[in-house]
Amino acid sequence: MEIMSQALTQRLTDELGKIRLVDPHSHINPHAAASKTLADILGYHYYTELAHSAGLPRETIEEPGLGPKDKVARLVTKLPELENTVQYSWLIEMCQVFFDFDSETVTAQNWERLYDRAATKMALPDWEEQVLERSGLDAVFLTNDFDDPLTGFDTRRYIPCLRTDDLVFHLAKPETQQRLAKASGVEFTDTATLRGVIGKLFEHFSRNGARACAISLPPDFTPEPVVAAAADPILRKLRNQQPLSSEEVRLVSCFVFWTLAEFCVEFKLPFDLMIGVNRRVYEAGVYQGQDLFDQRCSLIQYRRLFNAFPQVVFPISVLSHAANQELVSYSWIFPNVVTNGHWWYSNIPAYIEFDTRARLQAVPQTKQIGYYSDMYKLEFALPKFAMYRRVLANVLASDFVLARGWSEDRAIQLGNLVLRGNVERIFSC
Amino acid sequence: MEIMSQALTQRLTDELGKIRLVDPHSHINPHAAASKTLADILGYHYYTELAHSAGLPRETIEEPGLGPKDKVARLVTKLPELENTVQYSWLIEMCQVFFDFDSETVTAQNWERLYDRAATKMALPDWEEQVLERSGLDAVFLTNDFDDPLTGFDTRRYIPCLRTDDLVFHLAKPETQQRLAKASGVEFTDTATLRGVIGKLFEHFSRNGARACAISLPPDFTPEPVVAAAADPILRKLRNQQPLSSEEVRLVSCFVFWTLAEFCVEFKLPFDLMIGVNRRVYEAGVYQGQDLFDQRCSLIQYRRLFNAFPQVVFPISVLSHAANQELVSYSWIFPNVVTNGHWWYSNIPAYIEFDTRARLQAVPQTKQIGYYSDMYKLEFALPKFAMYRRVLANVLASDFVLARGWSEDRAIQLGNLVLRGNVERIFSC
Amino acid sequence: MEIMSQALTQRLTDELGKIRLVDPHSHINPHAAASKTLADILGYHYYTELAHSAGLPRETIEEPGLGPKDKVARLVTKLPELENTVQYSWLIEMCQVFFDFDSETVTAQNWERLYDRAATKMALPDWEEQVLERSGLDAVFLTNDFDDPLTGFDTRRYIPCLRTDDLVFHLAKPETQQRLAKASGVEFTDTATLRGVIGKLFEHFSRNGARACAISLPPDFTPEPVVAAAADPILRKLRNQQPLSSEEVRLVSCFVFWTLAEFCVEFKLPFDLMIGVNRRVYEAGVYQGQDLFDQRCSLIQYRRLFNAFPQVVFPISVLSHAANQELVSYSWIFPNVVTNGHWWYSNIPAYIEFDTRARLQAVPQTKQIGYYSDMYKLEFALPKFAMYRRVLANVLASDFVLARGWSEDRAIQLGNLVLRGNVERIFSC
Repeated sequence: MEIMSQALTQRLTDELGKIRLVDPHSHINPHAAASKTLADILGYHYYTELAHSAGLPRETIEEPGLGPKDKVARLVTKLPELENTVQYSWLIEMCQVFFDFDSETVTAQNWERLYDRAATKMALPDWEEQVLERSGLDAVFLTNDFDDPLTGFDTRRYIPCLRTDDLVFHLAKPETQQRLAKASGVEFTDTATLRGVIGKLFEHFSRNGARACAISLPPDFTPEPVVAAAADPILRKLRNQQPLSSEEVRLVSCFVFWTLAEFCVEFKLPFDLMIGVNRRVYEAGVYQGQDLFDQRCSLIQYRRLFNAFPQVVFPISVLSHAANQELVSYSWIFPNVVTNGHWWYSNIPAYIEFDTRARLQAVPQTKQIGYYSDMYKLEFALPKFAMYRRVLANVLASDFVLARGWSEDRAIQLGNLVLRGNVERIFSC
Repeated sequence: MEIMSQALTQRLTDELGKIRLVDPHSHINPHAAASKTLADILGYHYYTELAHSAGLPRETIEEPGLGPKDKVARLVTKLPELENTVQYSWLIEMCQVFFDFDSETVTAQNWERLYDRAATKMALPDWEEQVLERSGLDAVFLTNDFDDPLTGFDTRRYIPCLRTDDLVFHLAKPETQQRLAKASGVEFTDTATLRGVIGKLFEHFSRNGARACAISLPPDFTPEPVVAAAADPILRKLRNQQPLSSEEVRLVSCFVFWTLAEFCVEFKLPFDLMIGVNRRVYEAGVYQGQDLFDQRCSLIQYRRLFNAFPQVVFPISVLSHAANQELVSYSWIFPNVVTNGHWWYSNIPAYIEFDTRARLQAVPQTKQIGYYSDMYKLEFALPKFAMYRRVLANVLASDFVLARGWSEDRAIQLGNLVLRGNVERIFSC
Repeated sequence: MEIMSQALTQRLTDELGKIRLVDPHSHINPHAAASKTLADILGYHYYTELAHSAGLPRETIEEPGLGPKDKVARLVTKLPELENTVQYSWLIEMCQVFFDFDSETVTAQNWERLYDRAATKMALPDWEEQVLERSGLDAVFLTNDFDDPLTGFDTRRYIPCLRTDDLVFHLAKPETQQRLAKASGVEFTDTATLRGVIGKLFEHFSRNGARACAISLPPDFTPEPVVAAAADPILRKLRNQQPLSSEEVRLVSCFVFWTLAEFCVEFKLPFDLMIGVNRRVYEAGVYQGQDLFDQRCSLIQYRRLFNAFPQVVFPISVLSHAANQELVSYSWIFPNVVTNGHWWYSNIPAYIEFDTRARLQAVPQTKQIGYYSDMYKLEFALPKFAMYRRVLANVLASDFVLARGWSEDRAIQLGNLVLRGNVERIFSC
C-alpha cells in the first residue's frame, strides 16, 4: 500500500507538473523580467535577510557601488549556514535546472563557475522566453504602482495589478500627493475630488488590462466606511501638510480603502487583500528584510467590508498560519471571500501542507487560488511552484486518493482547478 | 513495516467501528429524529451554506413554500463545486450506506432516483430504529430550549440537555421573559426571583433525566460573579423594557451564567461550554450559516469560573483550532476541565487529527470526550463518527502502537474510553 | 520506499543517539542532582499535576510529613489514568533503562518492587555518574537564584545560569530586597544603586562560569526602557514598602529587565527569554502545577528590545505552539534571535514535530537550539532527549533525506548542530 503511495505521489506530482500556469501575484518588472546575473537571484530578500540573520552585516551586503559578482561572493560566504532552509533548496533547484549546476551546495570553490555560466545563459536574447517556457508560465500578474504608465510590455503576458498601499497608508506624504497629481492630472482637495482622482487610476488600469486591485495590510487594520463630512476636514489638513493625529490617519486610510472597494465594484475587479504585515519592525535589517507580524489578527476585522461589498471578490492571503482556519471558515461562509496562496512567512512546506489540507477539506473547490510566486525575478517561479506542487500532490494522494478512494484523474482535476482554472475564472484572464 | 501500518490502521478502524455509541451533543428533535426526505439531509446548514458560498443565492435556497424535492433540485446544481469537501463525503457515505447509492457523486442525472429511493426508505415505520441500529447509537443527547416540556419521547434514548444561550444572552428580550414566566409560573423581578425561576428550570430538567447544562459563548465572554446589589437595578430596568448599556448587558449575562454554574453544583450536572462563536457575522447568509469566529480568545478568560466551581465538570469545546493547545493544557491542570469533541469549524480531519494527537499525548485518558455529532438529523451520526474513528485509528496506530509499542488491544481500549466510556462516566448516563 | 523510510528513521535515531549532550536548561540542584527514591521522580510536577487533574486531592499528594514511599503509593493509584500521556512514557522508559523494569505499566502490584530496586540503584555512590554516562550528558545548565553562592560543585559540569524572575517581577517583596542586600552587600535606593547591585550579581555569576541570564515572562509583558527620572521615585516608594500602582509595578519590571539586558552586553551573556506563562492561574493546584497561559501573545512586544540590543543573543522559548511561527520568522529576520527548545505545554511530540519542521525549513541552521530537558532530576534527561531525537529523526528523514534527497550523513550533521554544536557556540561552553 505505502509503496504504492510513494509512487502515487510521484505520479500526481508529475501530472501536476504538466499544468501550465498563470501566476496570480508577483513583483516582476516586465521591462526586466528575467535575471541578468546570479546577483539578481541571490539579491532576493529571502537570501539577503537570511544571510544577514546568520551574521553577515548589512553594510557588507548593501555597500554602495558593489558590483554583482562581488555581492554574490560575499553572500556565498554565509550560504553554508542556510543550507537547511527551503529557500536554499529553491536556489539549488534553479541552478540545477537553469544553469546545469551539478552540485548540491554552492561553495567558495564552485560559485564563480556557476556565476559565469549563469551570466552566459542570462545573456542569451531569448533567456526570458526560455525561463517562461521551462517554467510552464503562460502569464504573470504584476504589482504596479498607481502611477505606472503600463506601457512597453505585453499586458496579456504580464498582467497589470493596481497596488494601493501608498494610497491607503501614505497619502499624507507630499511625494504620494505629487505622484497622484501627475498620474491623474488633478489635485485633490476633499473626498469628492480624491474620489475622482482614484477613479482615474482605475480607468487607466482597467483600460490597460488590469485584472486586480491589491494591497497589504497591517494586523490591526479594520476597514470601515467614513462619511465625507468626517473625512473632508482631515483631507484639508493633510493637503496643507498639517500633522494628523493617529485617529485622523486611521480615518484617511479607511476612507481611501473603502473608496477602492467601491471602485472595485464599478470596474468589476477582485480586491486582493494581503493581511497581517507589520512594516519596519527591524529597521536595521536589509532592504525588504525588515517586516514581521503580530499573530493577534482576525478576519472578524473585515466583517463590515465583506458584508458591504457582496459584488467584490476578495482573494485573501494571511501572513500568519494561525489565521488560516479563519480564512478557511470565512471562505466557507462568505460567497465573496476566496483563499489565495501561501504568503511569505507561511510559504514553507510545513505550513503550506497543513493549510492546504484544511482548505481542500472545507472550502468549495472553485473558491481556492492555490499558489502565487510573489517573485521579483522570473527564475523563481519554477522552484516555488514545484515546492507547492509537491505538497499539493502529497495532500491529494493522502486525503483524496487514499482516504476517500478518489481516482487519480479526479484528484488531478482538483489540482488543475486550484492551480490554474480558478485563477482564470476569478480574475477573468 | 508500513505495509503493516496500513493494515493496522484498518484493523483499528474496524474495531473502533464495533463500539456502540452515546452521542453527547446533538440538535436532534426527538419527535422527528430521522429524515423524511433528502431535503432534510441537504438542508443541513453545512450544505446550504457551502452551496450559498459557492454562489447559490439565499433566496433560491430559502424561498417560502419551496417543496423538499425542488429544494434538493436547486442544491444539487451547486454540489459539483463542493465535491472536495469532507461534508460532501458525509453525504455520499450516507447515501451509499442508507440508500444503496452506488455512485461517487450526486448529479443532475442521478439525484432524482436517489431522492425517491431515500423517500421510500425514510417512509418505513422503523426507519428511525434502522438508522440508530445501523449507526450503533444507544443514546443521543439533545439540545433543549429551557421551556421544552420534555414529554412524548424516551428520555433514556434521547437525553435532555438544558441549553441556556437564551437565558444568558437574550434575557432582555420580551419573548424570553414571557417564555420564562410560562415555563416557571413565576415573573422574576430581581436576582432573588430570577434565581428561583432558574432553579425551577433545573428541577424540571433534572426530573426529566437531563444530563447536562450547555451553552455557546462568544470569544470575548469572560465570566465573573455579580453581586445582587449590582444586578438588581439592572434587572429592574430590563423588566421595564428600558434600554441597557453594553456594560449592563454584560453584567446580566455574567449574573445569569454564574447562577447557572451554581445550579450545576446543586443538581450535579456537567456544564458544557462551547467557546468562541460570533453570531450573525454574515447577516445575509443562509439560516444557521451566518456565524463565524475571532481566534483571539483564551481560556484564561475562564480562570475565575474554573477556580470557583471545583465541583462542576466543564466539558469544553473550542471553535478555533488555535485554542486547542490551551484546552489541552487547562485539562491537564484543572481537575474540572475536560476536552469535548471537535466543534463546527474545527470538525474537519486536518484539525481533528492534530487536536486529537495533542489531547491523547497530554490529557489524562479519563478526561477526554472524543466526539459528538452536533447533528440535526439522525442519519449524520454515521458518517461523522466514521470520520472521527478513521482519524482516531490513525493516531492510535502511529502514536501508540508504532511509536510506543502498545498492543492493538491496549490502543482499542483507549479508543473505547474516549468514544464511549468517558461519556457514560462524565455524564452519569 | 516506505519500508526503507522506517528503517531510515531508525538509523537516524540511532545515530542521533550517539551524540553527547550539553543540556542548555534545567532546574537541577547540583548538590543533589540525581534522585534518591522513586518519589523524586514521581514527585516531578508533571506527575503530581496530572494525578491531581485526574482526581487525586492535593492534600493527599502534599500532606506534610508524608514519606517518599507513601507518596509513591498514593500517586500510583492514579497512574492508570495517565497511561496515555507522553509523560507516562518517560516514566516507563526511565524505569526500564535505569531500574531493569520489565513491565509496560506501573501498577498496584509491581510498584513496590520497582520502588525498592530504584532505591538500591540510587543509593550507589556513583549513581549520579551512571546516570550522566548512560544519558550521554557532558554538561547541564542550571537555573540559579540571583543569590546562589555557586560553590561546592563543578561549574564545568553544572553550568550556572542567572535566573532573574525575582528581580524583575518581585523586587517589591521585602524578602527579595533582603536577599539582594545580602548577596551584593549594598542596599539600593534608586536606579543608580540598583544598577550597581545588579552589576555585582553579574560579576559573581560571570566569575563562576555562568553562561546565560534567563527569565520567564508573562504573555502581556512588553519590555521598554525606563529613564531614571521616572524610575527613581517609584524605587523610593518600593523601598519604603509603599504600595505601587499597577503602572508603577510595570515600570519597575521594565527598568530592571532593561538593565539586565544592558549587563548581558557588558558580560557577553545570552539572555534566555521564556515567553508566555501566567503564574498561579489555578491556585488550588499542586506545587508547580498552577501555571497556564494566554495564547494571545506576540513577539512584536519585543521589537524594541531586539532592536536595542543587537549585541545580545536572545534564545527564545515560547510556551504557546501558536507563537512558534512568529519565533521562526523573528529568528529568520533578527540576527540576535535564536530558537530555543520546546517548552512545557509545547513539549509533546505533536507540537515538537510541527515546530521542528518549521524551524528546520526556515531558520539558519546555526540559529537553532534543538532541545533542553527543563528537568529537576538527572534521570529525566534520558527519556526527554530520546523523545526529541525520535521526532527530530523523523523530520530529518521525511523533510531532508526523502523530500530533498540529502544523504543520511548530511542529515545527521544537521541534527548534530541542532542538538550539540549550536549549544556550545551560542553559550560559549
